[in-house]
Amino acid sequence: MVGASALPTFADIEAAAKRIEGFAVETPLLESRKLNAIVGGRILLKPECLQRTGSFKFRGAWNAISKLKKSGAAKAIVAFSSGNHAQGVAAAAQIARLPAIIVMPSDAPAIKIANTRDYGAEVVTYDRVKESREDIAALIAKERHAAIVPPFDHPDVIAGQGTCGLELISKAKALGTDIDDIAVCCSGGGLTAGIALAAEALSPRTRVHTAEPEGFDDYARSLVSGKRERNAANAGSICDALLSPTPGELTFAINQPRLGPGYAVSDAEVREAIRFAFETVKLVVEPGGAVALAAVLTGKIPANNRTIGIVLSGGNIDAALMAEILRG
Amino acid sequence: MVGASALPTFADIEAAAKRIEGFAVETPLLESRKLNAIVGGRILLKPECLQRTGSFKFRGAWNAISKLKKSGAAKAIVAFSSGNHAQGVAAAAQIARLPAIIVMPSDAPAIKIANTRDYGAEVVTYDRVKESREDIAALIAKERHAAIVPPFDHPDVIAGQGTCGLELISKAKALGTDIDDIAVCCSGGGLTAGIALAAEALSPRTRVHTAEPEGFDDYARSLVSGKRERNAANAGSICDALLSPTPGELTFAINQPRLGPGYAVSDAEVREAIRFAFETVKLVVEPGGAVALAAVLTGKIPANNRTIGIVLSGGNIDAALMAEILRG
Repeated sequence: MVGASALPTFADIEAAAKRIEGFAVETPLLESRKLNAIVGGRILLKPECLQRTGSFKFRGAWNAISKLKKSGAAKAIVAFSSGNHAQGVAAAAQIARLPAIIVMPSDAPAIKIANTRDYGAEVVTYDRVKESREDIAALIAKERHAAIVPPFDHPDVIAGQGTCGLELISKAKALGTDIDDIAVCCSGGGLTAGIALAAEALSPRTRVHTAEPEGFDDYARSLVSGKRERNAANAGSICDALLSPTPGELTFAINQPRLGPGYAVSDAEVREAIRFAFETVKLVVEPGGAVALAAVLTGKIPANNRTIGIVLSGGNIDAALMAEILRG
Repeated sequence: MVGASALPTFADIEAAAKRIEGFAVETPLLESRKLNAIVGGRILLKPECLQRTGSFKFRGAWNAISKLKKSGAAKAIVAFSSGNHAQGVAAAAQIARLPAIIVMPSDAPAIKIANTRDYGAEVVTYDRVKESREDIAALIAKERHAAIVPPFDHPDVIAGQGTCGLELISKAKALGTDIDDIAVCCSGGGLTAGIALAAEALSPRTRVHTAEPEGFDDYARSLVSGKRERNAANAGSICDALLSPTPGELTFAINQPRLGPGYAVSDAEVREAIRFAFETVKLVVEPGGAVALAAVLTGKIPANNRTIGIVLSGGNIDAALMAEILRG
């Protein structure tokens, strides 16, 4: 069990921001007048699909791995991931010149497995239903004297993801804009927790919301019940990046007292949001990266006369799935 | 005939930059480490697909139309365009509260016609092979007391497009980066001319190059021969935005003494570039907006150890065509 003392703070996010400078992309804040007109509010998009490795995950991975490299604590890096964290860790380990072994589900999108190997990592696949990725990673860590960089439940990972919120809020402030709500695509809750910490420090009136796939809304339900709920299923959503079974322990400790209500969207609504991002914003967004946009486009998160930050958290979608979505 | 005195200057681009501020998007400068590694140089992408109306055309349209509005010289705006200029003019006229009549080829992509109507414009279609869009526009201008805003051969339009070059070079300088070459998707030459003027003023050693579809490389051939050459065909390329038959008179006067050699790419190379932008950069780029990227990806514009600015000039591609390209 990790004690409360291990929770990251805003100071850790500021330190992470210095660490990622020159390594991560400072993604722009984009605004679409068409989107604003459709929802009747002002939407500020934070396109993490434009981030190095195609998702926000590089932020946390580099923050954690650059610290491990500096301390000399690990001979290699192990991670388990449905794909985006895998790419983030592989790329960060490559920069740090540490070997990376990534444990990935055998049904992960081909592009994510291929890209992870392209970053020089060794990929070990497992059966998402029958095997435990945690057990496999622990065994590899022991055999290879490697440090595990978990996908969300680690202070350095959360602090790294928090830089996304720091940038979003700082850039909005530079435009003279106050943000009412931030909608975040949520799985284990690391990105959400980092953004919640940044918002608390920089813009306390801003409410941060989780967006999740229907059937995988463990975070929304946990926020209501006050304890970490589990999803009934562990597969079956188009959002391959958002299938964590339950909130992280650390992330839930951070998020529970800080978040507004969470929202869930259907696969059909996610497909609509991906198509909308293609047609109107000209960005490639993967299913798991489009749930927050879907939550706003459907009106589940009310945008009327509000200013809402939306994180488009990733863009690693297979060409075949995108073609299918575009054919309608 | 337009005299040399009508040629825009860098001061006109600076004035245009003030005029478009708060109306156009100051598009970011994006860099992909994967793209850099592939071509062996440093590539700075200027994604005008993220511009208002989905292409750079809004810049020139708003510069011209906001001036017309201020002078009270026109009761309406007429334009002829294969699509992107149409959307730029329609959106600019809507902001200026002037009626817009757009003359568009009947075979323009459905999304471009629909979007033009969405911006409140009246669309008049014509047969690209049998009819003259110039004649139709002139007749409408006379009947409706309207000013024609041409797609490229006008000082205010060229100056507006030049703001794209001004931003590209200024942002690169802010990064401490000197640009060796800028590759520009080229049809009538307005964007190229504006960027050439900006480069001459801000970074005289930077060479600006046209990129065109094979069979529609009138600009490249004109730069070689020293006179305005014509294309043999007026249809048949995937690049619907780049089918102008010959360089503009004004644009050629600006470009001829200022440009490096021009390059042509095949439809297959353009498809590859669109797919690359989807997979690696996570941007939606239309065929006509991808020719400059294609010219660099194919090695036709050598990138080895060079720093090259590439303008991704538009993203208005039909979903059906994108799906076909992604299916491969």
